[in-house]
Amino acid sequence: MAHIDLPEELPGIRGPMAFRPETSKPLNELAEVLLRSENSLTRGERELIATYVSYLNDCFFCQNAHGGLAQHYLACDMSFIDGVKKNANGSPISEKLKALLSIAASVQKSGKHVTSEQIDKAKSLGATDLEIHDTVLIAAAFCMFNRYVDGLGTWAPQDRMFYVNRAKARAEEGYANYNPYN
Amino acid sequence: MAHIDLPEELPGIRGPMAFRPETSKPLNELAEVLLRSENSLTRGERELIATYVSYLNDCFFCQNAHGGLAQHYLACDMSFIDGVKKNANGSPISEKLKALLSIAASVQKSGKHVTSEQIDKAKSLGATDLEIHDTVLIAAAFCMFNRYVDGLGTWAPQDRMFYVNRAKARAEEGYANYNPYN
Repeated sequence: MAHIDLPEELPGIRGPMAFRPETSKPLNELAEVLLRSENSLTRGERELIATYVSYLNDCFFCQNAHGGLAQHYLACDMSFIDGVKKNANGSPISEKLKALLSIAASVQKSGKHVTSEQIDKAKSLGATDLEIHDTVLIAAAFCMFNRYVDGLGTWAPQDRMFYVNRAKARAEEGYANYNPYN
Repeated sequence: MAHIDLPEELPGIRGPMAFRPETSKPLNELAEVLLRSENSLTRGERELIATYVSYLNDCFFCQNAHGGLAQHYLACDMSFIDGVKKNANGSPISEKLKALLSIAASVQKSGKHVTSEQIDKAKSLGATDLEIHDTVLIAAAFCMFNRYVDGLGTWAPQDRMFYVNRAKARAEEGYANYNPYN
């Protein structure tokens, strides 16, 4: 049971979002800009960064909800997503994305963990200032979302296919039009 | 020097906010709802929670910018703010606020650190579900803001009076109308 009185049928972030629409609005607008709006990083790449940080924060709901979306956008299977979580550098992803995931992993620990060497490496592999900015903010934002979901003691479906099966509809819905009751 | 090309004259979060107005908008709207809008927690109490979490995250800019605002709203001096940072339980603040700060400190570590005992204690001292929700989200949001500011390698004025002197004007400006060039 959640720490406060949330709609019982809604798992993960959906309970708090239904509980407090005033904060839900800017939170979803932030997710829309970071994860879906026009960007030189694909939606799949950005959802993968969100998934990776949520995995590092051990947030079951977020790592599976966003992992499902990454899997949908990247048209890959769950083992690909799990491979990135466990060994990003050994995964079949671009060297630039590996460098950005490394920055995201530092942000997950603390902003101060990001080094000039990590930034230089990402830039040398073609990462733009905007891509670095958005990677840092996606990682930071998921340090918020993960704490929000777990800090209120929400529940999460344990069957990982639940999230995979919902991903297509969630990708079509987007975040700006997010309805926690869907 | 910041990790990416930000307007050099702007310290702390103001550089990234000027760099990326698309994300600045929902970030400031979130701060407006959490820290300034109608609430049974005063603006001073909410800025104190933000300050405390920023202190735990060792973010110099945020703990002083929001510490200055807390000091302004609470009409106290800097030593009061510093006392809460160093020993919240020994400070002359309400027992309910101590319980909420304890929850915020757990969220700073990870959402999973929040215990039912902490929640029960806060409730027994009169904290409402909304106050607990907002405390968790303020703490989580500052885990984002702190990482955003430090993860991009921004600079911060080292004279703490800089922040105190700006607080009154910043309190009048609010977050929804935030202009990073002010």
